[in-house]
Amino acid sequence: MLVVQKYGGSSVATAERILHVADRIIRRRQTGDRVVAVVSAMGDTTDDLLQLAASVSSDPDPRELDMLLSTGEQVAVALLAMALRSKGQEAVGLTGQQAGIIARGRHSAGRIIRVEAERVRAELEAGRVPVVAGYWGVTDELEIMTLGRGASDTTAVAMAVALGADRYENCKDVTGVYTADPRICPKARQLKDLSFEEMLELATQGSQVMHNRAVELASVYNLPILVTSSFVDAPGTIIRGEAELEERNRVRGIAHDTDVAKITVRHVPDRPGVAAQIFEPLGEAQVSVDTIVQNASEQNITDLTFTLGRADFKRAEALMPAICAAVGAAGYTADTNLGKVSIVGVGIQTAHGYAARMFRSLFDAGINIELISTSEIRLTCIIAADRVADAVRVLHDAFELDAV
Amino acid sequence: MLVVQKYGGSSVATAERILHVADRIIRRRQTGDRVVAVVSAMGDTTDDLLQLAASVSSDPDPRELDMLLSTGEQVAVALLAMALRSKGQEAVGLTGQQAGIIARGRHSAGRIIRVEAERVRAELEAGRVPVVAGYWGVTDELEIMTLGRGASDTTAVAMAVALGADRYENCKDVTGVYTADPRICPKARQLKDLSFEEMLELATQGSQVMHNRAVELASVYNLPILVTSSFVDAPGTIIRGEAELEERNRVRGIAHDTDVAKITVRHVPDRPGVAAQIFEPLGEAQVSVDTIVQNASEQNITDLTFTLGRADFKRAEALMPAICAAVGAAGYTADTNLGKVSIVGVGIQTAHGYAARMFRSLFDAGINIELISTSEIRLTCIIAADRVADAVRVLHDAFELDAV
Repeated sequence: MLVVQKYGGSSVATAERILHVADRIIRRRQTGDRVVAVVSAMGDTTDDLLQLAASVSSDPDPRELDMLLSTGEQVAVALLAMALRSKGQEAVGLTGQQAGIIARGRHSAGRIIRVEAERVRAELEAGRVPVVAGYWGVTDELEIMTLGRGASDTTAVAMAVALGADRYENCKDVTGVYTADPRICPKARQLKDLSFEEMLELATQGSQVMHNRAVELASVYNLPILVTSSFVDAPGTIIRGEAELEERNRVRGIAHDTDVAKITVRHVPDRPGVAAQIFEPLGEAQVSVDTIVQNASEQNITDLTFTLGRADFKRAEALMPAICAAVGAAGYTADTNLGKVSIVGVGIQTAHGYAARMFRSLFDAGINIELISTSEIRLTCIIAADRVADAVRVLHDAFELDAV
Repeated sequence: MLVVQKYGGSSVATAERILHVADRIIRRRQTGDRVVAVVSAMGDTTDDLLQLAASVSSDPDPRELDMLLSTGEQVAVALLAMALRSKGQEAVGLTGQQAGIIARGRHSAGRIIRVEAERVRAELEAGRVPVVAGYWGVTDELEIMTLGRGASDTTAVAMAVALGADRYENCKDVTGVYTADPRICPKARQLKDLSFEEMLELATQGSQVMHNRAVELASVYNLPILVTSSFVDAPGTIIRGEAELEERNRVRGIAHDTDVAKITVRHVPDRPGVAAQIFEPLGEAQVSVDTIVQNASEQNITDLTFTLGRADFKRAEALMPAICAAVGAAGYTADTNLGKVSIVGVGIQTAHGYAARMFRSLFDAGINIELISTSEIRLTCIIAADRVADAVRVLHDAFELDAV
């Protein structure tokens, strides 16, 4: 079979680990499988390069920053290809451009618009292992464009889809997807399988195992994903269209995120067009709004609350006085010390009692809920950031996720 | 006027120096001149990357090595462009590919075959400072190819020729070209001007001020070169077609090199075709032969000596037994601890007494001459490596190069 494997920064952080990854790829080739490797920058390279940029400019130009950061993956690609060749496995390192990753959009947040996979396909047919730079591509004008942090996953899934690969393997420093983050929830248990929707909700709600855009893309093309360890041989977690539907606890995992800020616009006249007047200027300022909640209207006056990441908060807050004036609101309040905790599982919204059990467990633990949002397969509570770890443990127990 | 400036690794070694180079370019722009900057990798970056390569492979693949090393210049380009922009000067960083440097040949020793300068020209017309990666280009198949160490000079001259620039400025950590290396000859004096031929001989014979291919290229297109300091404001040395021909000492400078090995093939039958039988296999093994000397033949038996760099010595020596057998020679002797010292100046071969004065001065200092070679404007003596520094000082005095 043909697999696309991604090796993250920690899997290629040192020469020793790169040599280990080379051995791992060679063993896989010996089973008869064909392998395309997508790699991230070594360890802390990206942070080091950002620091270098900060030392010459307090506000580095985004185009030049992309040119700078893209070198991180290129170094890792060259080293892994060298390591493979020196161990006797034909291999070829490919930049984002050579691999045909064509992107568009704005610098530091590009989107892949197509993959021109002829070169990669030719290298595979010649018996080589193509080693591809994750995280960036080029525009039609040959400008280098990075795809957002963690987007090596997206590169790898897009490449797998373009090649018609049988599977995407996300090779990491963890052995798979867990019911919750094992660092804060010792009882967390590794999952054997997950549906795309479940993984997508976990990723979007703060699980750092996979990049949500990558899961979405794999889901659209029904490409199975294996999350597995690059360090040890272990079964991993498989993510695919239909998870095995044996009898089981329908809450599959708990995601959390401690990076949440909240802004409430007070006493907004409840008339058509108000929401647009609030969110259009925020969108233009590149503020990513997460959850929006509008309270029930009393006498045509309502409160409107939205959440966002802390990185966007300052930019959003600067716009608030003008926005309040434009819509005729009384003002706004803000809180930047929030987090969120989510339970995820197919069927939890249609089944009875999950929401109630979640709210009751948090209440019993003395954790106040600031805001609630839901999807088909998810229930999220916004709570104080310093109670997030407690909340994960409480919910893991409440839904008995440690039981197989 | 339009100038192409090159900033070497030491001129961009730290964030502080990059900011200094940015100021220097901006001051130049303010005089009305248009500037294209070509940059090398920061400080020891290339050595660091080579070490990284050595840590994953004892014999790194040359193609992957080029992919790895090219990131060094890309980092410097992005940082200098950022620095310029943050100081209010519009600028744009360009990779070897984006700048249209098209190369061919073998990896690590590519040659520029053409410069597609449309992008650089357009950026200049838009009022920006193009900041171009030195040292590498791409092949027509988009493969990254480096041009040999020190070849950022060549990139810059090729770019200047393609743009029809008025001058190439080589901005360095020295203030110009000296009569000898000031580190070993304290009396060395900076030259005001030099001819292309003189600079070419100095560069080829070991002076590290300029890359010889760059001088050659500038000479063919009659492009004036200014060698100047990137750190301080100083006049520099101008290199051009006709140096000012006022009355002067015709020895202009002394070059030296301590990296010389010598192989002598003993008792070679003196018949046609012997030289080809010796040097063809060496050429195929990529051994660069420098000087070749064949002694006068006695009874159709001769000794043939050639010199080469130490890096090629092992490869050459491995071939010698087979070569000796093929030509019917008695064997070979070798010496790897040699160096060379050269006097350079237009007219020294046609004028009387220069050779005699050189040999006499070395003899008086007790320095033995192993081999002599000459060109139109140069006299070179191969001597023991550990006497090279003495020889430079002795010859600097003998030809009174400290006198203006």
